[in-house]
Amino acid sequence: MRIVLAPDSFKGSLPAPEVCAALARGLSHVLPEATILARPMADGGEGTLDAILAAAPAGARRETARVTGAGGEPVVAAYGLVDHAGAPTAVIEVAQVVGITDDAAMRVPVRSRSTRGLGQLLRILLDRGVRRFLVGLGGSSTNDGGSGLLAALGVELTDAKGAPVAPTPDGLAALARVATTGFDARLAHCEIRILSDVNNPLVGPLGATAIFGPQKGVRSDEVASIDATLDAFARRAQDAFGRAVAERPGAGAAGGLGFAFQLVGGVVQSGAEVVAEVVGLDAALSDADWALTGEGRSDRQTLLAKAPFVVAQHAAKFDVPVTLVSGAVDAAALDALGAHFAGCFGLADGPMDLASSMAHGAALLEARAANLARLLRAHRIRRTGARRDTA
Amino acid sequence: MRIVLAPDSFKGSLPAPEVCAALARGLSHVLPEATILARPMADGGEGTLDAILAAAPAGARRETARVTGAGGEPVVAAYGLVDHAGAPTAVIEVAQVVGITDDAAMRVPVRSRSTRGLGQLLRILLDRGVRRFLVGLGGSSTNDGGSGLLAALGVELTDAKGAPVAPTPDGLAALARVATTGFDARLAHCEIRILSDVNNPLVGPLGATAIFGPQKGVRSDEVASIDATLDAFARRAQDAFGRAVAERPGAGAAGGLGFAFQLVGGVVQSGAEVVAEVVGLDAALSDADWALTGEGRSDRQTLLAKAPFVVAQHAAKFDVPVTLVSGAVDAAALDALGAHFAGCFGLADGPMDLASSMAHGAALLEARAANLARLLRAHRIRRTGARRDTA
Repeated sequence: MRIVLAPDSFKGSLPAPEVCAALARGLSHVLPEATILARPMADGGEGTLDAILAAAPAGARRETARVTGAGGEPVVAAYGLVDHAGAPTAVIEVAQVVGITDDAAMRVPVRSRSTRGLGQLLRILLDRGVRRFLVGLGGSSTNDGGSGLLAALGVELTDAKGAPVAPTPDGLAALARVATTGFDARLAHCEIRILSDVNNPLVGPLGATAIFGPQKGVRSDEVASIDATLDAFARRAQDAFGRAVAERPGAGAAGGLGFAFQLVGGVVQSGAEVVAEVVGLDAALSDADWALTGEGRSDRQTLLAKAPFVVAQHAAKFDVPVTLVSGAVDAAALDALGAHFAGCFGLADGPMDLASSMAHGAALLEARAANLARLLRAHRIRRTGARRDTA
Repeated sequence: MRIVLAPDSFKGSLPAPEVCAALARGLSHVLPEATILARPMADGGEGTLDAILAAAPAGARRETARVTGAGGEPVVAAYGLVDHAGAPTAVIEVAQVVGITDDAAMRVPVRSRSTRGLGQLLRILLDRGVRRFLVGLGGSSTNDGGSGLLAALGVELTDAKGAPVAPTPDGLAALARVATTGFDARLAHCEIRILSDVNNPLVGPLGATAIFGPQKGVRSDEVASIDATLDAFARRAQDAFGRAVAERPGAGAAGGLGFAFQLVGGVVQSGAEVVAEVVGLDAALSDADWALTGEGRSDRQTLLAKAPFVVAQHAAKFDVPVTLVSGAVDAAALDALGAHFAGCFGLADGPMDLASSMAHGAALLEARAANLARLLRAHRIRRTGARRDTA
């Protein structure tokens, strides 16, 4: 029996590779002869790098680079390198450079935070000959419209007097001119795939500042002015690049990094689909008997291209039943989910509070996997026996 | 596909027949072609009568009789009649006559409560020709050593002056003599099976008064005197019947009804085993593909002859996988339970408090059953397909 484990992380509780490990322990306990293939999933947000490296695709290695963090202090950012489709490919998580969990950066006002570290990281990788990039956009602390990225890649941002402005919301307020003369020409030969499940445009009422700004520290009385600043910056930048992307879905992701990456040629793709491709999900599923997926909490939104749904769609190509094991499953969504999954199961074994459920996530996963395996084993044995009887 | 549903009740939440109905709804939703056989279980306690009648064995009917309640007021007690092993058999729940949920009786001090109504019910049934009895002992409010049962069956209980004493703890304190002259001779020709999972003796530190008295209202300063009264009563009663049963396991059940029923020839048996026999569990399991059982909460005690364990043992005879679906499953017992069940599942789909879990028990059961069925259906379809491919 071949079983594929392809869960997303259980956010706030367990990274996807640990979810796989716990499921594998439970399954192996009951089905010691089963071949278990761990293909941890992610959607481009936090955990994407770990999920991809855990699947150990060809040439996979984890490295770090010292670049400038969102607040100006140096940060040591992890990234991955894999050989994908015949070429070295870098796996970058925006949050590794300008993460909202970087306490030092968060002490700097959001108006002064910048994404220049991402541009630095790209140049380091360009210098090493990398031309393919997977960029996960989740979890940023910045709201600079991606101006830092552009500046670090050689785009000149200057004020009315021709003096450079800082690539931050504050600095951009004085922006008068954007020039691409010094823009790193190597970008033209790169493939940049942006992993995001955010569809927001750069500015306006559904833009980066209005929707995601407040959780990064943008005060309500600052929203309008910062939004106007980003709008003006975007117009100038688009003119300079001769390309209009600010309205595209995902331009508002990661405080406008989605805009800047698209401006330099990047393409927004479904994070879970790209991860599935890189971790080799189809190859694992092609001769599997069963797959397990899951996430912290499943509800109707799961069916909007979240990782478990992507796994179910890939598995359906190969007629592999996929069972959903999530931290919690919204009872109101069970019927809708049931059309896509061979059973949907939450983790609790009975009344239990959220904190306990999260604290005991690994043990609960292991137990749930063991019990699902017991059910299947019993039926497989019986059916094998029944066939023998009638043969 | 034939599926047997044989759960115990979920105490405080759902009677076993309703557990069956909820499971059946979930299974039928996913497996409309499945044949579902409901065999609700019980252990001799509350719900035994309903479980047996719900399985609708031959000649099953529910009747009522007006007899004396524990506190002296009349009660209308339900009982069942079934044709079992070729003879009319009465199914009696002690709690229907002297139930601890009878508020009127509970207002009378436990020292004045009596089981005479059970003797009256037996005589009504004897008058109708019934000679076989199944008596579930759970849930009584009395602690009279079963003296009320004996008195109503014609045993004379008198004081030193030859005057009758009341068959209550208070009355028995003046007991001087027990005479069986008037004892209903028809009892000698009866089969009385006592359903109980209580092993306590009648008196002493593990006896009825010490262990179960307090929850019925025996004050701590009354325990010793009432225990001594029951001890003296038991010695005289045993002398009169020429039979010693006070030390037998179960003599302390139902405030000493276990003693009195054994004194008149009753035999204590595992409640769940007897219910399994009466509801025809084996016949249902003999050609089943799958069985589901469960209870309010499963833990290591489940493996001490509780109904789900009895179901598992019977199913094992026929190689039928049995899955446990309980309100809650003790995580610490999962491995031990896993050796006996084809998967153990609690009801919660995620973090949930006890009250919600109990309030939504039926919906949770239905959803759980549907999801287990989806898992099995997917694997059965796949296996069928695989066999076709290789055939």
